[in-house]
Amino acid sequence: MKIGIVGAGQLGRMLALAGLAQGDEFLFLDTAADSPGAQVATSLLGGFDDAEQLAALAKRCDIVTFDVENLPRESAEIIARYTGFQPPIDALATAQDRLSEKRLFETLEIPTVAWRSVERAEDLHEALEAVGLPAVLKTRRLGYDGRGQVFVRRPQDLAEAWQTLGAGPMILEAFAPFDEEVSLIGVRNPSGQCRHYPLTRNVHWQGVLDYSIAPLERSGLQKQAESYVQRLLEHFSYAGVLSVEFFVVNGRLLANEMAPRVHNSGHWTIEGAATSQFENHLRGILDLPLGDTRATGHSAMVNFLGALPPRAEVLEIEGSHYHAYGKAPRPRRKIGHATIVCAQRSDLPARLERLRRLVGPRE
Amino acid sequence: MKIGIVGAGQLGRMLALAGLAQGDEFLFLDTAADSPGAQVATSLLGGFDDAEQLAALAKRCDIVTFDVENLPRESAEIIARYTGFQPPIDALATAQDRLSEKRLFETLEIPTVAWRSVERAEDLHEALEAVGLPAVLKTRRLGYDGRGQVFVRRPQDLAEAWQTLGAGPMILEAFAPFDEEVSLIGVRNPSGQCRHYPLTRNVHWQGVLDYSIAPLERSGLQKQAESYVQRLLEHFSYAGVLSVEFFVVNGRLLANEMAPRVHNSGHWTIEGAATSQFENHLRGILDLPLGDTRATGHSAMVNFLGALPPRAEVLEIEGSHYHAYGKAPRPRRKIGHATIVCAQRSDLPARLERLRRLVGPRE
Repeated sequence: MKIGIVGAGQLGRMLALAGLAQGDEFLFLDTAADSPGAQVATSLLGGFDDAEQLAALAKRCDIVTFDVENLPRESAEIIARYTGFQPPIDALATAQDRLSEKRLFETLEIPTVAWRSVERAEDLHEALEAVGLPAVLKTRRLGYDGRGQVFVRRPQDLAEAWQTLGAGPMILEAFAPFDEEVSLIGVRNPSGQCRHYPLTRNVHWQGVLDYSIAPLERSGLQKQAESYVQRLLEHFSYAGVLSVEFFVVNGRLLANEMAPRVHNSGHWTIEGAATSQFENHLRGILDLPLGDTRATGHSAMVNFLGALPPRAEVLEIEGSHYHAYGKAPRPRRKIGHATIVCAQRSDLPARLERLRRLVGPRE
Repeated sequence: MKIGIVGAGQLGRMLALAGLAQGDEFLFLDTAADSPGAQVATSLLGGFDDAEQLAALAKRCDIVTFDVENLPRESAEIIARYTGFQPPIDALATAQDRLSEKRLFETLEIPTVAWRSVERAEDLHEALEAVGLPAVLKTRRLGYDGRGQVFVRRPQDLAEAWQTLGAGPMILEAFAPFDEEVSLIGVRNPSGQCRHYPLTRNVHWQGVLDYSIAPLERSGLQKQAESYVQRLLEHFSYAGVLSVEFFVVNGRLLANEMAPRVHNSGHWTIEGAATSQFENHLRGILDLPLGDTRATGHSAMVNFLGALPPRAEVLEIEGSHYHAYGKAPRPRRKIGHATIVCAQRSDLPARLERLRRLVGPRE
């Protein structure tokens, strides 16, 4: 199959590498000519709102997917005029708007922190009353990797946060005093088959994923998370991989946000699961039978942010695998990762610590 | 690192896919412009004896390896004038000549079937006396996938076999009444680190690999095979993956032949081992620490010969993964494979049978 991908970052590149192994062909559309994806397949040059290039991509592909979650709904609709587009546009649009996302969680009875919509400055006071402090003010759109949000500790800081974020439509969320952050990756194909990966524990640094450990191995939470993600998959008649982040608060899951695509917290599945999230995303969008999602060991994934550690030193850690995305180093930029897979859970902490020392202090 | 590969068949393609994930770049040299490798990386067009293109490849790469075992020694030497070449040229040259190969096995006390060198027609009689019948007459050079050999049942057939094979330098081997055929893949880096994959059982059809099952799980044979392959790795101060095929006769290993490269019988390691043979070959030639070679489950690999079975039907088999090489179908041609990985050994036979039915009868 010829598969188009809008956005040729590392997620698109890893999708292509998974599909090339299966004999699929790939065509990217990206704003940069030297993107990670363009190093492994042909890439059209154009903006994500370039109607002409979007149509050109669509006409040359059997199906189109994306690795940029801020792809405008209108762009997806242009593609869908000419060829298949998956995951569903509704899922993409819902995930782009924190208000729609929270409302959907509410409709599907997926618990979240307390939250209120803030349309105008006048709504701030009432939202604060309902949500309490500390809280997080977030723009409804274009937030990722910690951008587009401000932590609010004191009532008098709220108005300034509102201005800082651009005085547009936002939501105010209660700050969850979470024990840990976890994510679940589910996958569905249009025939209705669904599978879920083991829960992954995620540790962030300044809003960016620092490292992940999987599987979490708490069977109660696993079942609960699968039930929530399953509701979302069915709601959208979803195809491909859907990632949902949760806070764990007092042993309970509160949904934070969803991403209608492969996810950084699932990179460990390349070596640590029977089928990678990338292979399963492709199987899902192509309506092929899904692959086994079991963990084959105990894994940890550490992001390379801003710099690549020495490859030989990373690979000296038993069970480790090194990934680089072909991106130029820039402060805080995700340019690679390493995954360690251990047969024994007890081997993981020391190896993870060694890897974390190699990537240096996060500061 | 920028890695050159002489030959852009499926082995080169799978090497490149493994390396691209690690941020390596690839450049092929092949006689065909639409090779499997050329679909995933840039490929120079030229014969494997094209001194100009060999030099051009070498000058653009940090290291060069190969996926064609019949690469002339002289071609490797041209490359080695400009950049690193691995595995060692001596290993390549030895594997290309059945006589050198058998003599090395003898020197290193690696048992083989009885054999005799046949330089001229006059040597046939004495060779037959020493080796007995049935026997196999093999050309010393350019034999692979069952080519370049004739099975000899009766003394009077020997002279005809000699003519059929071109009346050049050959060896006559006793036909081993083997219980099974197995292979071991070892890997070494220039720093001296060595690792071995679990033994794989191979079933051939008309001289071509039909399917493989791994691990074999007979610890006595595993240790013996590792000891033999270790001797070869050390003899050559080897770098990269070395594959050795054995006959099992009365519970004893007899070396058949070696290939100084990744091997069809190791394709199951992509999904069925902690580190694939392709990733480990690259680590080996780049003198990086080697990856864990343990099997993560019980695997079977079936070759797609001449035609691709329907992808959806293959993937309906639990634990299966589908590979296609971007090659045009042609009778007997290797154009893809599937691997099934099971957590339980007992699940494997039925799934393998289902997969074998999908690829159709071998006839």
